[in-house]
Amino acid sequence: MEKIEVRRVSVKRILRSGTERILDEVPVEEPLSIRVAHWFKDVQHTENLSVTMRTPGHDRELAAGFLLAEGIIRHSHDLLELRPLGAGSSNGSSNEILAILAKEVDFETWRAGRSGFLNSSCGVCGKRSREAIVQAEPVKGQDRFCVSASLMEKLPGLLGEHQRGFIATGGLHAAALTTADGVIEAVFEDIGRHNALDKLIGSSLLNGTLPWRDRVVFLTSRGSFELVQKAAAAGAPVLATVGGPSSLAIETARDCQMTLIGFVRDARFNVYSGDWRIHS
Amino acid sequence: MEKIEVRRVSVKRILRSGTERILDEVPVEEPLSIRVAHWFKDVQHTENLSVTMRTPGHDRELAAGFLLAEGIIRHSHDLLELRPLGAGSSNGSSNEILAILAKEVDFETWRAGRSGFLNSSCGVCGKRSREAIVQAEPVKGQDRFCVSASLMEKLPGLLGEHQRGFIATGGLHAAALTTADGVIEAVFEDIGRHNALDKLIGSSLLNGTLPWRDRVVFLTSRGSFELVQKAAAAGAPVLATVGGPSSLAIETARDCQMTLIGFVRDARFNVYSGDWRIHS
Repeated sequence: MEKIEVRRVSVKRILRSGTERILDEVPVEEPLSIRVAHWFKDVQHTENLSVTMRTPGHDRELAAGFLLAEGIIRHSHDLLELRPLGAGSSNGSSNEILAILAKEVDFETWRAGRSGFLNSSCGVCGKRSREAIVQAEPVKGQDRFCVSASLMEKLPGLLGEHQRGFIATGGLHAAALTTADGVIEAVFEDIGRHNALDKLIGSSLLNGTLPWRDRVVFLTSRGSFELVQKAAAAGAPVLATVGGPSSLAIETARDCQMTLIGFVRDARFNVYSGDWRIHS
Repeated sequence: MEKIEVRRVSVKRILRSGTERILDEVPVEEPLSIRVAHWFKDVQHTENLSVTMRTPGHDRELAAGFLLAEGIIRHSHDLLELRPLGAGSSNGSSNEILAILAKEVDFETWRAGRSGFLNSSCGVCGKRSREAIVQAEPVKGQDRFCVSASLMEKLPGLLGEHQRGFIATGGLHAAALTTADGVIEAVFEDIGRHNALDKLIGSSLLNGTLPWRDRVVFLTSRGSFELVQKAAAAGAPVLATVGGPSSLAIETARDCQMTLIGFVRDARFNVYSGDWRIHS
């Protein structure tokens, strides 16, 4: 719940009553290049994995969460080190990070599987996308975890207290982890909703609390396939979003036995999957 | 402004007053694989370019717009054919499309430039991202194009009449092209804001009206770097968004002499770049 980077820009504000020049705070967006060092036949290889447009801050968490959500790593011991490379960002932080993988991580097989997915799935239908997702190993008792309808009603207010960047800029997404009692354990903000969730996942991975047991993930965004996929990789039993879900997000959540809740606002919400986890 | 695909799902709606089971309409999300056939040393090669999670419909426009916005093609004659491959989507449409490029299109150089960007830019700063963007060739007189503050105030209402998918589902983004007189010439909706803009760009490319002259692009989303980049590739002089812009979006718009407007709602808005184009 640290301060997120915002930038002040001079802006012309136009209202019906007239025009004024103001200093507006906007969310910072910069590219982060994630590189991986992995082993293949006893030789270490380093290569570019991904470039994401993100709000600087918690880049280690972002990279760790991305690696887990993509299925490249499964445990914190798969990741030996996260090393920022060079200086780049305007605030002196780096826009490049190297993830050094343990020797046991089979990056080549992951790459082949991903490439097979890209080659074959999309002419078939969304079904293959759903089959390709990585799920955390089932957590014992997770199927008995329930949350109350009143927690859902309270979530937007509880999160609002922690959304520092959003309050300043009106342009950031947040991802929060809460207990069934409404205790918010972690909040991460980013200009990209997938980055906010990656940071949340990475934070739990790095502090050894994955897979998530008896926790609710709450996002200020809509619910897309990609977000359900990431939450499933971290073992989330319940995913709640302020916006609505897509068709593929619902189908994927149902496949994963995940409770998917949408339109959490104005003291009402819709349950799209796994409604046995919600009690009144 | 055709009907966008939505799906009906059975949902449990929880209100303070009680619980009901309803049929909710949700936006369809499915993967579209974009493949390209290009020439290198007199041999035609076919390969996967990108997979995007999109709302089916206007896939030809989406693929054409993506190719232009990425800088792979510059003119409609660079694109010989757009061919759906196989059947896939639940409604019988295909989730795979092949773009056959003209022999003159130098795909290999584009790929090398992109790879260089991925390798070198991100350790430096957002500056390289801005330098790497593709802009449409300058349109004569585009610097004299002005729009009125009252058009901005009217835009959300004008667009609302065309957002069929959003009204049904509450979960789709729209991209619209309007004249300075407030005539909405085209609207495309998609679960992804970048896809909605790609469809709008592709539609203009395919009907021969690029670069955009004296037009305003209006998006229901926030303004990210990626969206400014795409709008610049299509030559848009003015980009207006319902949400706010990021730092890199503002810097890029200023580099491109593009007027960037944010928070267009409730009869007010902020001008982040190029305010000489707005008159009261």
